[in-house]
Amino acid sequence: MAYTLKLVGIGSGNPKHLTLEAIEALNSCDAILIPHKGADKDDLAGLRRQICADVLTGDTPIHEFTLPIRDEATTDYRQRVDDWHDAIAAVWLDAMQKALPSGGTVGFLVWGDPSLYDSTLRIADRLTKQTRITTQVIPGITSIQTLTAGHAIPLNRINGPFTITTGRQLRDNGWPNKVDTVVVMLDGACSFRHLDPTGITIYWTAFAGMPNEIRRSGPLSDITQDIIETRAEARKKHGWCMDIYLLRKDD
Amino acid sequence: MAYTLKLVGIGSGNPKHLTLEAIEALNSCDAILIPHKGADKDDLAGLRRQICADVLTGDTPIHEFTLPIRDEATTDYRQRVDDWHDAIAAVWLDAMQKALPSGGTVGFLVWGDPSLYDSTLRIADRLTKQTRITTQVIPGITSIQTLTAGHAIPLNRINGPFTITTGRQLRDNGWPNKVDTVVVMLDGACSFRHLDPTGITIYWTAFAGMPNEIRRSGPLSDITQDIIETRAEARKKHGWCMDIYLLRKDD
Ligand SMILES: C[S@@+](CC[C@H](N)C(=O)[O-])C[C@H]1O[C@@H](n2cnc3c(N)ncnc32)[C@H](O)[C@@H]1O
Ligand SMILES: C[S@@+](CC[C@H](N)C(=O)[O-])C[C@H]1O[C@@H](n2cnc3c(N)ncnc32)[C@H](O)[C@@H]1O
Repeated sequence: MAYTLKLVGIGSGNPKHLTLEAIEALNSCDAILIPHKGADKDDLAGLRRQICADVLTGDTPIHEFTLPIRDEATTDYRQRVDDWHDAIAAVWLDAMQKALPSGGTVGFLVWGDPSLYDSTLRIADRLTKQTRITTQVIPGITSIQTLTAGHAIPLNRINGPFTITTGRQLRDNGWPNKVDTVVVMLDGACSFRHLDPTGITIYWTAFAGMPNEIRRSGPLSDITQDIIETRAEARKKHGWCMDIYLLRKDD
Repeated sequence: MAYTLKLVGIGSGNPKHLTLEAIEALNSCDAILIPHKGADKDDLAGLRRQICADVLTGDTPIHEFTLPIRDEATTDYRQRVDDWHDAIAAVWLDAMQKALPSGGTVGFLVWGDPSLYDSTLRIADRLTKQTRITTQVIPGITSIQTLTAGHAIPLNRINGPFTITTGRQLRDNGWPNKVDTVVVMLDGACSFRHLDPTGITIYWTAFAGMPNEIRRSGPLSDITQDIIETRAEARKKHGWCMDIYLLRKDD
């Protein structure tokens, strides 16, 4: 059996961030697989279903499948992630074979851009060891772009470098060397509060690109508390919260 | 007079990378301004014209204007860029007032994403001092996303940080600290050749997303020469060459 996987970036919450290429790619699939992630993230599966309903012009079959849960009993972090990706790859293969027993083109709707803090490409790589797979990536608007567009700010100073990192990295390793701009993702814990806020401006967005988007910006020393509280309230109200922020050191 | 500026990211060369939001934004404009940059970059003005022809459903007027040249006689780099942005802002304002004497919504098609190594937002900022301007940014697919999609690679290692920088920075400052992945833009001179290539893999793309896209990947020690030659040939053939690359240190 041979499969072509189309990993289609769908943007990070605004269905209008879909590209013409993404729409064409989804319509070229023989089947589309949509994962369930559990109750709190149901809004995300909902957006995927809505996008399919909006852009598919034929009767492409859509199959939902349940993602395995990460085994928190495995203590080594790298091992835990590896095992989890193996388990997801097995579930993918099973779903693909059920949907298209004699092979074909399978579409996955990937949040934001498939290259950015996303495991889809790593899972697809695992499948190449088990079946004949060709992988195609369709780029998507990332949450970084949605953050900067909402605040109407540049990512970089003129010709300056910048670093993209995670909340955990920021907390454990502090401000990255030799850059004046840092974008932080995958931060459930407002890790900016561990920095010395002097001379840092923050641009923060939760639910970027969605109807309930929330934005805050200003000197980190002034608005740290406001963001912590706003995030906690949003999380309480919606059951989950995705946020991203850019930190810039003053000139 | 009041103007709304829509800075619309159009992707970095593939017209199918346009988003639904970008198409809607362009159609909502009272006028669209397209810059001329000089003969060698005419392909770029051409793509902008083609996009307008493809997606505009009404008869939105399109005005072309000539961008001023940077004054290379100004020795201080920062000053030279500042003066140049001032000059562009003056040309913009003039073109806007000619196109829409009583104000309105003006669209600019911005290469890639407006936040990434682009001066449009800085120029728009200058105008706020001279007239009533509201700026809206529509995100676009960056050349970074087009690079990683073409090679079907992730930007980051699992939860790892990465740095985006320029050719000049890489040459002058070497490998950025504490990251295993670096994306290099604005490099006319294959600055990767100044690195010790041991244990580094390069993913290189010229004309990403365009019909003449060229890709190379492999150990930097093996393919440095190939890339230098391929780039020189492409530049000779087309009169210009835009390239971008990702460097990753082996685990
Ligand atoms: C697993 S990563 C996926 C990133 C995605 N591939 C992209 O291109 O944006 C999830 C993280 O992305 C950021 N993120 C994604 N969508 C977001 C949104 N709509 N609003 C705010 N942050 C978002 C958050 O930092 C979140 O923790
Ligand atoms: C002035 S910056 C503009 C970047 C743009 N805003 C973006 O989002 O990609 C120009 C640099 O972007 C990169 N670039 C833009 N388009 C490209 C393309 N189609 N192929 C390769 N590199 C590209 C090159 O490194 C080039 O020097």
